[in-house]
Amino acid sequence: MTNQTPATVSLKQHRQAFPGLADKAYFNFGGQGTMPKAALDAIYQAYEFLQAKGPFSRQVNDWIEQECQLLRRAIASELRTSPATITLTDSVTTGCNIVLWGIQWQAGDHILITDCEHPGIIAAVKEVARRFNLRVSTCPIMATLNRGNPSVVIEQHLQPNTRLVVLSHVLWNSGQLLPLPDIIQACRTFKSERPIQILVDAAQSVGQLPLNLSELAVDFYAFTGHKWLCGPAGVGGLYVHPHALEELNPTFIGWRSITMDGAGMPTGWQPDGRRFEVATTAYPQYAGLRQAIATHQAWGTPEERYTKICYNSEYLWQGLYLLPQIECLRSLPPESGLVSFRLTTNEILHPRLAQALEQQGFFVRTLKNPDCIRACVHYLTLPSEMDQLIKVLGSL
Amino acid sequence: MTNQTPATVSLKQHRQAFPGLADKAYFNFGGQGTMPKAALDAIYQAYEFLQAKGPFSRQVNDWIEQECQLLRRAIASELRTSPATITLTDSVTTGCNIVLWGIQWQAGDHILITDCEHPGIIAAVKEVARRFNLRVSTCPIMATLNRGNPSVVIEQHLQPNTRLVVLSHVLWNSGQLLPLPDIIQACRTFKSERPIQILVDAAQSVGQLPLNLSELAVDFYAFTGHKWLCGPAGVGGLYVHPHALEELNPTFIGWRSITMDGAGMPTGWQPDGRRFEVATTAYPQYAGLRQAIATHQAWGTPEERYTKICYNSEYLWQGLYLLPQIECLRSLPPESGLVSFRLTTNEILHPRLAQALEQQGFFVRTLKNPDCIRACVHYLTLPSEMDQLIKVLGSL
Repeated sequence: MTNQTPATVSLKQHRQAFPGLADKAYFNFGGQGTMPKAALDAIYQAYEFLQAKGPFSRQVNDWIEQECQLLRRAIASELRTSPATITLTDSVTTGCNIVLWGIQWQAGDHILITDCEHPGIIAAVKEVARRFNLRVSTCPIMATLNRGNPSVVIEQHLQPNTRLVVLSHVLWNSGQLLPLPDIIQACRTFKSERPIQILVDAAQSVGQLPLNLSELAVDFYAFTGHKWLCGPAGVGGLYVHPHALEELNPTFIGWRSITMDGAGMPTGWQPDGRRFEVATTAYPQYAGLRQAIATHQAWGTPEERYTKICYNSEYLWQGLYLLPQIECLRSLPPESGLVSFRLTTNEILHPRLAQALEQQGFFVRTLKNPDCIRACVHYLTLPSEMDQLIKVLGSL
Repeated sequence: MTNQTPATVSLKQHRQAFPGLADKAYFNFGGQGTMPKAALDAIYQAYEFLQAKGPFSRQVNDWIEQECQLLRRAIASELRTSPATITLTDSVTTGCNIVLWGIQWQAGDHILITDCEHPGIIAAVKEVARRFNLRVSTCPIMATLNRGNPSVVIEQHLQPNTRLVVLSHVLWNSGQLLPLPDIIQACRTFKSERPIQILVDAAQSVGQLPLNLSELAVDFYAFTGHKWLCGPAGVGGLYVHPHALEELNPTFIGWRSITMDGAGMPTGWQPDGRRFEVATTAYPQYAGLRQAIATHQAWGTPEERYTKICYNSEYLWQGLYLLPQIECLRSLPPESGLVSFRLTTNEILHPRLAQALEQQGFFVRTLKNPDCIRACVHYLTLPSEMDQLIKVLGSL
């Protein structure tokens, strides 16, 4: 293995576009990505434009409409789907809530969720179940990180009255990539009373994986722009499969959800993903996310970026694997940029180590379940940053 | 009437802090307020800070927690309530949705809504009613603008099974100020099967009226920061009366809603208004809204600002009232900064006039019901701006 990939030189140049990468070794892309300067500038320019030409005016309203369209298109191009399938949200969690509260539940329906979902999603599923009198069960996916087949585990936990499966495409704790096409296939062929729908928490997959949602045929795919896409916090989206659109009721509703008559009275839902959008929001950030997507696309295709991410995570994983004081959760190189590991000695607690690392300019985070440290490498990550992290961990 | 109020000189100086007020006559504060430079700077500085110190790190997480607390406190000081009663939202509409979907409805419950509510809220109420099998009726408040008592009209439309009254404190179309204390009193004393709760759309009242929510004892008061408070679009809030907190179910749920145990599993709701907050959002804007509130408070108390707003709206109303080609909707001076009027000639359509005015630097908006033009004056508005608007309308 060499420290240099073919793209290293141009990557160093590309990294100049990200002020947040200077003077630190950043491994928290799974928490929040560092924004490119073009995205920051787009946000600032949007604010100045709004004050100069509005902030409320016909000219600004036209601009807002255009920005919404442009962002939906940019997201759709990255996820390979049509803009009409995209709802703009503020977070991945809101996208999941739109689905959870919009399904036409019947009392007794069953939701299957994995044991690796984010606490916010678990809490939302529990409350939906309480209110609609549903049953929820959890399937053990965490144990399949190194052996076993997650698709088989999920299939074994489906029930005749299963209505929804809730899972992450890439698990936020271990970084495991779930075989989504197989899982979708298993749900489609399972003999259930009603079709089983699949809600994917894509917080860790959008911006990492090359995706083709048109081909994938998943029902619901909720994501955010502020992690691997390196956009501003507060903008995300939800993909709803065209076949699932009409059956999914809008829940939180506002002027963006509806069509209106000449007297301004509601007449129906917007014909596309806009029906799940609510009201006025932070539009300058739309311009920011769009610029972030454009910045990545200027460096490489989603496939090229994912290849580089996997190259980097294997590099880091291999370096950590050789350290006696470190145990990587994965026994094989990761299939995503999330590299989770724990200390084999109990003398140092993970939160204390993460804090000490941050003071030295290494940004990682701890997780509670499993108790571990997570280092995220993007296509932007340099071998030298990983070398330094490996070195400092090796010196413990 | 004189063109100069005592505060005019210092106001001209104060207006320098608002770049959006330069080079135009701005009358759209009810749509979106012009942001003070301090708010814009706070947003930009927050973005730079996030990139320098994170964007995901312990230091940034501490900053976010502090910003949330500081904003809740700033809002609470402006609305005269405790920070624990405040939920941070992205818009007034989201605040209304939190209430509408969180009430423990029984089939057949009745919702009373006025005929002057925003289409987004009407649509949300209709969908809640459809899903929970509720009945909705609309009471004629628009007709009370110049005669009659809105409180009496509302009381006449209450039913034994009325569960919720939905109304605006200041009507977005006519600018009418509804007598909220009387309406609350009428609902409290009405003999209903269960207590009647009151949800206020405060889009046009927060930042205009001096408020004391602790005294008002309203159940739910949903507002936004981007209109009369002149903060960035995308930050608002919801006041929930302490007595109403426990009975209101959180609906859209995320990690911000919950408490967690040592393994990161949900254990319950946050003890205060945070239980209705969801997940990651545009935190830099929190700093922006806080600075906007501070800018207003530096100029004057809520009482002083409202007095000035009423002075200005009376000034504009009087000027328009004398024009034969203009008919003001109000036959008496307005009690808010919203001055709605129509042309008495049918030769010019309102949208065309608004467009022509915008091209000349006068920013007003049209409304569809009633068909009219709305000019909003803030405490920031200058007599000279109103004189110019009156002059251009007089020359039609």
